[in-house]
Amino acid sequence: MTGDQGGQVSRPAPRRTLGLGVIGCGYWGTNLVRNFAAMPEARLRALADLSSERRETMAARYPDAAVLDDHRRLLARPDIQAVAICTPPATHSLLAEEALAAGKHVLVEKPLATSVADADAMIAAAAAAGRILMVGHTFVYNPAVELLASLVRDGALGRIYYLRATRVNLGLFQRDVNVLWDLAPHDLSILEAVLGRDPQRVRAWGQAFVHPDQVDVASLNLGYADGLTALTHVSWLDPCKIRRVTVVGDQKMAVYDDLEPLDKIKIYDRGVERPPYADSFGEFQLSYRYGDVHAPRLRWVEPLRRECAHFIACARDGMPPRSDGPSGRRVVALLEAADRSLAAGGAEIAMGGDKR
Amino acid sequence: MTGDQGGQVSRPAPRRTLGLGVIGCGYWGTNLVRNFAAMPEARLRALADLSSERRETMAARYPDAAVLDDHRRLLARPDIQAVAICTPPATHSLLAEEALAAGKHVLVEKPLATSVADADAMIAAAAAAGRILMVGHTFVYNPAVELLASLVRDGALGRIYYLRATRVNLGLFQRDVNVLWDLAPHDLSILEAVLGRDPQRVRAWGQAFVHPDQVDVASLNLGYADGLTALTHVSWLDPCKIRRVTVVGDQKMAVYDDLEPLDKIKIYDRGVERPPYADSFGEFQLSYRYGDVHAPRLRWVEPLRRECAHFIACARDGMPPRSDGPSGRRVVALLEAADRSLAAGGAEIAMGGDKR
Amino acid sequence: MTGDQGGQVSRPAPRRTLGLGVIGCGYWGTNLVRNFAAMPEARLRALADLSSERRETMAARYPDAAVLDDHRRLLARPDIQAVAICTPPATHSLLAEEALAAGKHVLVEKPLATSVADADAMIAAAAAAGRILMVGHTFVYNPAVELLASLVRDGALGRIYYLRATRVNLGLFQRDVNVLWDLAPHDLSILEAVLGRDPQRVRAWGQAFVHPDQVDVASLNLGYADGLTALTHVSWLDPCKIRRVTVVGDQKMAVYDDLEPLDKIKIYDRGVERPPYADSFGEFQLSYRYGDVHAPRLRWVEPLRRECAHFIACARDGMPPRSDGPSGRRVVALLEAADRSLAAGGAEIAMGGDKR
Amino acid sequence: MTGDQGGQVSRPAPRRTLGLGVIGCGYWGTNLVRNFAAMPEARLRALADLSSERRETMAARYPDAAVLDDHRRLLARPDIQAVAICTPPATHSLLAEEALAAGKHVLVEKPLATSVADADAMIAAAAAAGRILMVGHTFVYNPAVELLASLVRDGALGRIYYLRATRVNLGLFQRDVNVLWDLAPHDLSILEAVLGRDPQRVRAWGQAFVHPDQVDVASLNLGYADGLTALTHVSWLDPCKIRRVTVVGDQKMAVYDDLEPLDKIKIYDRGVERPPYADSFGEFQLSYRYGDVHAPRLRWVEPLRRECAHFIACARDGMPPRSDGPSGRRVVALLEAADRSLAAGGAEIAMGGDKR
Repeated sequence: MTGDQGGQVSRPAPRRTLGLGVIGCGYWGTNLVRNFAAMPEARLRALADLSSERRETMAARYPDAAVLDDHRRLLARPDIQAVAICTPPATHSLLAEEALAAGKHVLVEKPLATSVADADAMIAAAAAAGRILMVGHTFVYNPAVELLASLVRDGALGRIYYLRATRVNLGLFQRDVNVLWDLAPHDLSILEAVLGRDPQRVRAWGQAFVHPDQVDVASLNLGYADGLTALTHVSWLDPCKIRRVTVVGDQKMAVYDDLEPLDKIKIYDRGVERPPYADSFGEFQLSYRYGDVHAPRLRWVEPLRRECAHFIACARDGMPPRSDGPSGRRVVALLEAADRSLAAGGAEIAMGGDKR
Repeated sequence: MTGDQGGQVSRPAPRRTLGLGVIGCGYWGTNLVRNFAAMPEARLRALADLSSERRETMAARYPDAAVLDDHRRLLARPDIQAVAICTPPATHSLLAEEALAAGKHVLVEKPLATSVADADAMIAAAAAAGRILMVGHTFVYNPAVELLASLVRDGALGRIYYLRATRVNLGLFQRDVNVLWDLAPHDLSILEAVLGRDPQRVRAWGQAFVHPDQVDVASLNLGYADGLTALTHVSWLDPCKIRRVTVVGDQKMAVYDDLEPLDKIKIYDRGVERPPYADSFGEFQLSYRYGDVHAPRLRWVEPLRRECAHFIACARDGMPPRSDGPSGRRVVALLEAADRSLAAGGAEIAMGGDKR
Repeated sequence: MTGDQGGQVSRPAPRRTLGLGVIGCGYWGTNLVRNFAAMPEARLRALADLSSERRETMAARYPDAAVLDDHRRLLARPDIQAVAICTPPATHSLLAEEALAAGKHVLVEKPLATSVADADAMIAAAAAAGRILMVGHTFVYNPAVELLASLVRDGALGRIYYLRATRVNLGLFQRDVNVLWDLAPHDLSILEAVLGRDPQRVRAWGQAFVHPDQVDVASLNLGYADGLTALTHVSWLDPCKIRRVTVVGDQKMAVYDDLEPLDKIKIYDRGVERPPYADSFGEFQLSYRYGDVHAPRLRWVEPLRRECAHFIACARDGMPPRSDGPSGRRVVALLEAADRSLAAGGAEIAMGGDKR
Repeated sequence: MTGDQGGQVSRPAPRRTLGLGVIGCGYWGTNLVRNFAAMPEARLRALADLSSERRETMAARYPDAAVLDDHRRLLARPDIQAVAICTPPATHSLLAEEALAAGKHVLVEKPLATSVADADAMIAAAAAAGRILMVGHTFVYNPAVELLASLVRDGALGRIYYLRATRVNLGLFQRDVNVLWDLAPHDLSILEAVLGRDPQRVRAWGQAFVHPDQVDVASLNLGYADGLTALTHVSWLDPCKIRRVTVVGDQKMAVYDDLEPLDKIKIYDRGVERPPYADSFGEFQLSYRYGDVHAPRLRWVEPLRRECAHFIACARDGMPPRSDGPSGRRVVALLEAADRSLAAGGAEIAMGGDKR
């Protein structure tokens, strides 16, 4: 507690300060804690983690927050209105339902759950409790993804032929989920944000190279209406980090390279020109159009910071979040279908293909 | 016309100058002509092309060579012992058989043929004629591919988990072959050179975006013995040129980036370390090893120049070429299987899986 | 305040916790505060800044630290033993002398002072007070700079011909110092760390493009014994960020690119080969040697974190810091000489050229 | 010898075919020969070189051209109207004057001469002979340089503050000229093309690291009217190839990277914004403007091909070339001044500063 001598700033408590708790302080949980701690609209009141080592680290860094070994103590605190859950995916649904039952608004790390059934139960629990359920699809809050989405929505690229996403590096192996459940949620939430609709069918390929029980390199092939296709490749076993989405339209093409510090989106005025009346292959003449490249200015804000602020705002005002329970469920449904496809040797799995 | 005044160099004809002819002077044929014309061990005697425009261009550039509209005139010349065929793939087998029947040694552009049956007929014709049949798998003569092959063969990368090849750009649409037959022969010949064995099964995905009759974006999944997998992605519809092969071993990883001007091969001393006795997932602990990166010096020679010189040497000395008929046939067999897989909605096609 | 219920970690106070204060919470001061706050060996007790807006931000983020508008209140606190000064350069010497007089150990941001006379006074004050005076030459604590220094020291590059440093981007204009005093301290401290000796002469060029009173683009030419030369170019007016040091030796060459995320140092086995007895130009034959490129693994630690930990360790144990007052003074002496050279139209200014 | 059988193209001689000769068939001369040989508007009739090895190579490649050891034989041929001189710089003026005296149009490799006096003599000789004198400033014919020049001329970048050019790599050491005379002509001709005027003063720094008699690393500082400055750095001793020109204007900035395969010019909508009435430093407030990046489509043609075609067109039609004798002389004058500045320890040398 800082003293109240002259020259020191006074800290008037905001009228409706939201009390926050975070369950799970691993790699990603720590990032959420850092963002929450720096936000004036809320107050980080408690953290919970099973590891005593992590608890000590967090206690040293956040002396104002209670650091607990049992999440139930955290949920029992009346000064906490909203909770973020950053634990292993298999525990998401149980913890979220406990938190909702305790009357907390809940932000759950991606993937929302490890089955559609669990996701449905979480959505129902949130509705019953009258509380916010949000999923941590961080890329939805990324200015580059928003720009890509607006380019597609406004027709700036023309009709979209296909998207290709690559997300590889020497990655963190997970015990409890395979590489698809670990990395593909990012691309699937980007695809949903950019295309505004769901695929009609999913095929997956994957292989377990290092440990026989865990797929560590995988690809998805997502088929949408009108022949649009999205390809994603994810790997924990690549020497170079690549984070790249290419969107190919019949007018222009765009590349989103998340590793570029400034110019993350490049729009290529390139394409194939078809003559107007080529109805047989005999008359088929294509010519290539190479044109300017344009990298529009992105006003950068840390996506996780925007996500955290959005959660706080939704929790305080009772507004539905952009990455809500149903969007979390849609990603889980695709991952579940992908697992089914993997198990069936790459068979095609039919999906809803809904448009939003 | 060179005079014979003093001060001018005399040009003694080498004892066994090989007479060369080139059939097909399009984009790639022109490159062969340029290389052949600069080689002292041979003499470029005639070119043939159906296009009068191309013939005029070639006549202006190579005034010493006869420029013909009918390849039969070229094959009829007794001062030509060896012929390169750089025409559309569908014409390869017919032209090659004609040339072999005329007693010429033959270099055929990749792909060797458009069916295994045709390739078999060409191989038989070469055997019957006692002449060389070589396929223009240029990457086999690329110093970077040779280095990659030696790294794999010598075990420098450890046991190979998988390879991933990407070959995309805004490409030249072909009327008569799809993107697989156009671009994948490069990667398939690289895979054969690097791995020294054939896949046991092939699966293909592909889609025709621009013209409904021609697949312009495609992927191959090649399964080898011992769980080794190779993935290739080829596209005529990408705004950025990528020419990249990643080889992931359990000791080290290597990346071959053909667009790098100098350091085409980088070896990453990176990998996953497994504890010795982790037989259950409960004990499963992986740690990552990040180490040095090494780009060995490549003594660069233009691969096509080496290929052309190798063809001349083999033709003169009657030696079997490194990229012989059977290796051309193996690539054709894979492409044929890929087409079958495409037609069967991505079904797995069994292959020989031979080791060499 | 964290409660003391069961399940919460206890926080035993270390025996000799160092109390810290930070004066100046601008862009860089904030980074120091963030690092100090996360260190268990010390306790951040007070911050001082003249801006009420900054004080409010810091108060919200660091509720345990007193946030003051007058640095004298901070210096008066007996629970503070060490102080970091991150204010504009012109105020460094006065504030440092006040802090030393109050018995505090002092870390001063670079440049140590704005004149050699001031730097001398600070060094004398530290000696008189028996307290540590350290300058924030962060790059001295950078693992990449340490590696570069060891390559040079161990002779791995051979005899060093020259270094070339480029540090440009669209930068933060400073009111009180020109671009040399703002950016060149980084390169000058890197040069001192890498070469282990001082230049014998300095020449500077600079120009004020945007504001007539402030040089915003500048170059230094530093001459060392044995013909070794270092060139640095700094600019606030460049569209692209470049942070690059090239070291050219007669055996090998090295490039340190600070913007590379992983492989910051590349060693090129490239050079010029001279024949042994070429004593006249007539016999002069040079050949180029292109060889491997090697990027040694760097164990990365945030340099500022190491710098902060080093300051705390030195303050607690009374050990002289690596970036001590005299090294800060040497950089100031070079900048002062550079200003003199600028004023004299690029005249050469003689320096000590000491070896350490 | 091409036959005249049916099916072979006829080659009607153009009405006014220009006969060409090339003196000097080293690295660069070979490139000129290759371009000349492929041009239908002219006929390459003779080559001259002192080296028998080179003559043999050229004789094998260009069997239609006479290959001579004495350039006087070449100049004596009446079927040659135009001559390119690609010999060491010190021989340019003598050979050019001989060629002009023989009534030939002359293209001289850069630098035009090794002294202003020689350049003046060459210009006078061309005027007296009524023949074209052109200098091989290839970059003047480079589409990227033309685009950069039009951006500057049209004010797209605003008022130009400065240019910075870097041209370094592990280079070809020259016996007879230092690195400035070898590499800086490129940048000086680019500067002339882009700025359309000459500097008022020149300062040079340079050093001989490998061979004591030959400067191998050097910088130029060129001062123009209105405070515009151009900086160039050239080196034969750098592990990485850099070919880059940055142009900084008060509205926008542009970077020309010659090593980019497609997008050689990038225009950055970035700059510093000054408030309208900041006449004292007290009111001085600058803000940065980060905006879009734009890479305009360049229609690429090999610059040397355009240069060769321009020479042929000028010679045939008697038109003055874009890179004429006086522009060659201006570059030589700058290099001569740079050598004087080097000799005088970096002293400033006054130049004309003419505007064209």
